[in-house]
Amino acid sequence: MGPNRTKPYRLAAREARPHRTVIDVKGVQVGGPGLVVIAGPCSVESEAQLFETARAVRAAGAHILRGGAFKPRTSPYDFRGLGKAGLELLAEAGRLTGMPIVTEVLSERHVDLVARYSDILQVGCRNMDNYALLEAVAETGKPVLLKRGMAAKIREWLLAAEYILARGNDRVILCERGIRTFDDEYYRNLLDINAIITARLESHLPIIADPSHGTGRTGLVTRAALAAVAAGADGLMLEVHPNPAAALSDGFQSLTPAEFGNLMAELRALCQAIGRPLGPELGTRAGGVA
Amino acid sequence: MGPNRTKPYRLAAREARPHRTVIDVKGVQVGGPGLVVIAGPCSVESEAQLFETARAVRAAGAHILRGGAFKPRTSPYDFRGLGKAGLELLAEAGRLTGMPIVTEVLSERHVDLVARYSDILQVGCRNMDNYALLEAVAETGKPVLLKRGMAAKIREWLLAAEYILARGNDRVILCERGIRTFDDEYYRNLLDINAIITARLESHLPIIADPSHGTGRTGLVTRAALAAVAAGADGLMLEVHPNPAAALSDGFQSLTPAEFGNLMAELRALCQAIGRPLGPELGTRAGGVA
Amino acid sequence: MGPNRTKPYRLAAREARPHRTVIDVKGVQVGGPGLVVIAGPCSVESEAQLFETARAVRAAGAHILRGGAFKPRTSPYDFRGLGKAGLELLAEAGRLTGMPIVTEVLSERHVDLVARYSDILQVGCRNMDNYALLEAVAETGKPVLLKRGMAAKIREWLLAAEYILARGNDRVILCERGIRTFDDEYYRNLLDINAIITARLESHLPIIADPSHGTGRTGLVTRAALAAVAAGADGLMLEVHPNPAAALSDGFQSLTPAEFGNLMAELRALCQAIGRPLGPELGTRAGGVA
Amino acid sequence: MGPNRTKPYRLAAREARPHRTVIDVKGVQVGGPGLVVIAGPCSVESEAQLFETARAVRAAGAHILRGGAFKPRTSPYDFRGLGKAGLELLAEAGRLTGMPIVTEVLSERHVDLVARYSDILQVGCRNMDNYALLEAVAETGKPVLLKRGMAAKIREWLLAAEYILARGNDRVILCERGIRTFDDEYYRNLLDINAIITARLESHLPIIADPSHGTGRTGLVTRAALAAVAAGADGLMLEVHPNPAAALSDGFQSLTPAEFGNLMAELRALCQAIGRPLGPELGTRAGGVA
Repeated sequence: MGPNRTKPYRLAAREARPHRTVIDVKGVQVGGPGLVVIAGPCSVESEAQLFETARAVRAAGAHILRGGAFKPRTSPYDFRGLGKAGLELLAEAGRLTGMPIVTEVLSERHVDLVARYSDILQVGCRNMDNYALLEAVAETGKPVLLKRGMAAKIREWLLAAEYILARGNDRVILCERGIRTFDDEYYRNLLDINAIITARLESHLPIIADPSHGTGRTGLVTRAALAAVAAGADGLMLEVHPNPAAALSDGFQSLTPAEFGNLMAELRALCQAIGRPLGPELGTRAGGVA
Repeated sequence: MGPNRTKPYRLAAREARPHRTVIDVKGVQVGGPGLVVIAGPCSVESEAQLFETARAVRAAGAHILRGGAFKPRTSPYDFRGLGKAGLELLAEAGRLTGMPIVTEVLSERHVDLVARYSDILQVGCRNMDNYALLEAVAETGKPVLLKRGMAAKIREWLLAAEYILARGNDRVILCERGIRTFDDEYYRNLLDINAIITARLESHLPIIADPSHGTGRTGLVTRAALAAVAAGADGLMLEVHPNPAAALSDGFQSLTPAEFGNLMAELRALCQAIGRPLGPELGTRAGGVA
Repeated sequence: MGPNRTKPYRLAAREARPHRTVIDVKGVQVGGPGLVVIAGPCSVESEAQLFETARAVRAAGAHILRGGAFKPRTSPYDFRGLGKAGLELLAEAGRLTGMPIVTEVLSERHVDLVARYSDILQVGCRNMDNYALLEAVAETGKPVLLKRGMAAKIREWLLAAEYILARGNDRVILCERGIRTFDDEYYRNLLDINAIITARLESHLPIIADPSHGTGRTGLVTRAALAAVAAGADGLMLEVHPNPAAALSDGFQSLTPAEFGNLMAELRALCQAIGRPLGPELGTRAGGVA
Repeated sequence: MGPNRTKPYRLAAREARPHRTVIDVKGVQVGGPGLVVIAGPCSVESEAQLFETARAVRAAGAHILRGGAFKPRTSPYDFRGLGKAGLELLAEAGRLTGMPIVTEVLSERHVDLVARYSDILQVGCRNMDNYALLEAVAETGKPVLLKRGMAAKIREWLLAAEYILARGNDRVILCERGIRTFDDEYYRNLLDINAIITARLESHLPIIADPSHGTGRTGLVTRAALAAVAAGADGLMLEVHPNPAAALSDGFQSLTPAEFGNLMAELRALCQAIGRPLGPELGTRAGGVA
């Protein structure tokens, strides 16, 4: 079937493919029947903090490890990540726990560096319209996790994915992470479930939700995660920190390992109800190291 | 326990009550353990259309019948409802099917009239800030279903409820119906699940979701309904029409009776998973007429 | 020329009239060549406060006196105005200073009362979609000042005006008062100059701007007022209070009489530049009482 | 005076400097007493199109020439500019007409290339949060024109400027280009005059307005430009095309040379009224080539 002629995102459109896209990341299938859970700290702060978190989320059933080595910060004076040292820690934590890793790339100049360490390259919401970066990550051939911009229309988001697909890289994971609205008294962003539903109707690409950023408040994360899965999300991305109050970034929206464990239990029940299995335990897949 | 001193909505605040509020509407408990489903046409158009819809939603498991007799329309030239004749048909349909009814009141002058027929008075999103109407409906002593305004902050919504509570009527059902955002290419409104979660944390009042208006597109309604329930909504309000394409209002967001039946089946499975029963079949409660 | 067929607001559309509508309010022409300035306190608080303000704005060149007797407040516990006593004071202040008056009506039940005292009936932003109120004020035959809702689309605003025109009252003054956006750290609302320009292109009705609500910060009011006039507004509505710090409502956006005087001086220079006179001094018009 | 301690944008805050910043661009003072006008086509399309436009805007009184060589486009399939050839044409057009030039840089990899040709480096609204690009342009030492993101809070915009200042480059020109709201039926973006006023109160940096993008409709541009100047903008940036209907990008918001000439005449009258001269004719300044 040829490129779609009526939708502006020819390659990302659902009509462009006979089946939904499933992306294999070292044995974890994103977009397949199983729900995939990505978890880890907002920022990589230290070996101890990262490894403790990685082991905890792995034990609770997470499939992919997240963590920021290069952090986009609104202020130039805030903690901006450990950089290359953070990447090395992430890779090591991934090896130890048998999980593939995902981390954000902020600069065209860092694309090759990040691609050497990370299994998935994340383009953050601030860079969804950074077309130079989109094309640079596309060219690595690695899977790309593309967050929606905080005021991006769905059409624009799918066209940002199209920038990657048009460069010959069709391994794009869409990630809804909350939009900016007129009310931020009780939450920082609003997790857009309509966007999750729509993305699945409009595109063949996998779509995951980030309820940590999508609410910005720990107390809302679990319920928002369940809602996203009920809406049809193929996976979740969650911030977990052993001591959120001491986190160098985003502590107010991070779960403790115990809270994350409770969430995983609720997810298992929900997945059963909606007929979608929680992704396989890592120990059971090829390449797992449980 | 006295009125809450730190939150501006003293009576609506969760701290103002030892327990969550449960509102009994002719035997249907709104805000109790069971999920409550309100369904029916956007507008009452004719006896045939209303009765067919009422019987269908009743058979599929709905608990309360909705239908508009006075319709708020953006244009003065659009169909504005059957008025008193619509109220009479609604009341008759409620009697025939054993369901309590809810309908919107648009004018202070109609409050007494609508209160004579309807078991719940609905204040629509356009009138959330119409304080004169809020106080008039409060004084009827009837339960009030208070929709959130399309750009109302959560604090403002709870303060609108406070207008009713402060007049001595504490039977307020909050209803999240979608907000206005920067993107309406794929949906008219965005169902705000963060608001559902927050309302349950901030207030003791029951909170229901309206995925029909919260998406404005039939194809998104079912998934959005499931998400709202997973987020913790105490109930749902849904538009159903025997022939959506011929509806005089909102056909593009109405479910057919068959689609509604499928949604109810999915809800039953979901309710089981999250440990919240779907509200009792009407035939099993006191006063039911199955 | 018949009603416009292509625009949904048939009577409000520019094409529906050969000329722009000019509304005479006791000799003040709104929508004519002269810029009209409406000024006064947010709320009528006392005889002393109102009369001092009225004399001051009159001396500085204001044409119409504003003041709230019935105040819409987000919280039911805030000061809600003096009601009928406030109307009597307003009418007296108008007589003493020779200015017509404008005040808001919040309830259908108060329409006749307010119409007995006020020369213009104001429908506030919270009630733009309160169609019952729109029709009730239309039927008084008095001029209506219709504020835009805080998240109302321009089309919806013109259709709200259409509700009044369709009842045979064509004396509608549109008022842009700022919209709600994603940023309220530095201002409460955003004065929408694109809406002012568009309203003049789309409709024959006069359009005025309210920079007090359109910014919500005293320090921004003067510049925003000048911008609105440069954009083509037919008039301005401004909050003035002899002692803003002690105001019972909206002190943070009120000008002092001295600040208002300075604004009027800047307006005179601007009006000359854009070839639009500031409306005539009241003493020079028929019926003036200087 | 040391860095400001209470505002997060220490160097950009007004309190950080005794005077407003004035940026000299080849003899054109941006942020000084004179209003500065930047004009030219959206995209550089050909030598004929660019040179005709440059001569026309120069003759009408523009001070700086704009034109896009690298174009950020929502779709990867749209015209993306002439690249280096476009830069060469721009530089030549600047020489011929005696105007400094400004053009956008989209990629870190192009910063040095663009800096070789352009007198001012523009960071577009899509890249306001692209911190890697902000730091790269900062290091060229060239003046930077920093557009506000389409949903950026004012605080975030000033912090984006802070990224540049913190790298030792204090020649930042802020540019308000319209924000995204809930209504785009009549205009694409909303020119935020409150932001213009606020930026001047909060920061010492020059602030200009882009009414072409700030409205997205030719018919609104002139009025919006006048409003921005009345609000206090230090300059304007305008799209002009000899034949807007045939433009490869943004024709619907471009002025013809004749419309631009009329706007300049209106600006002259307005500038006189508000006591701010239109910047000097280029022929009268040192280095001019009239």
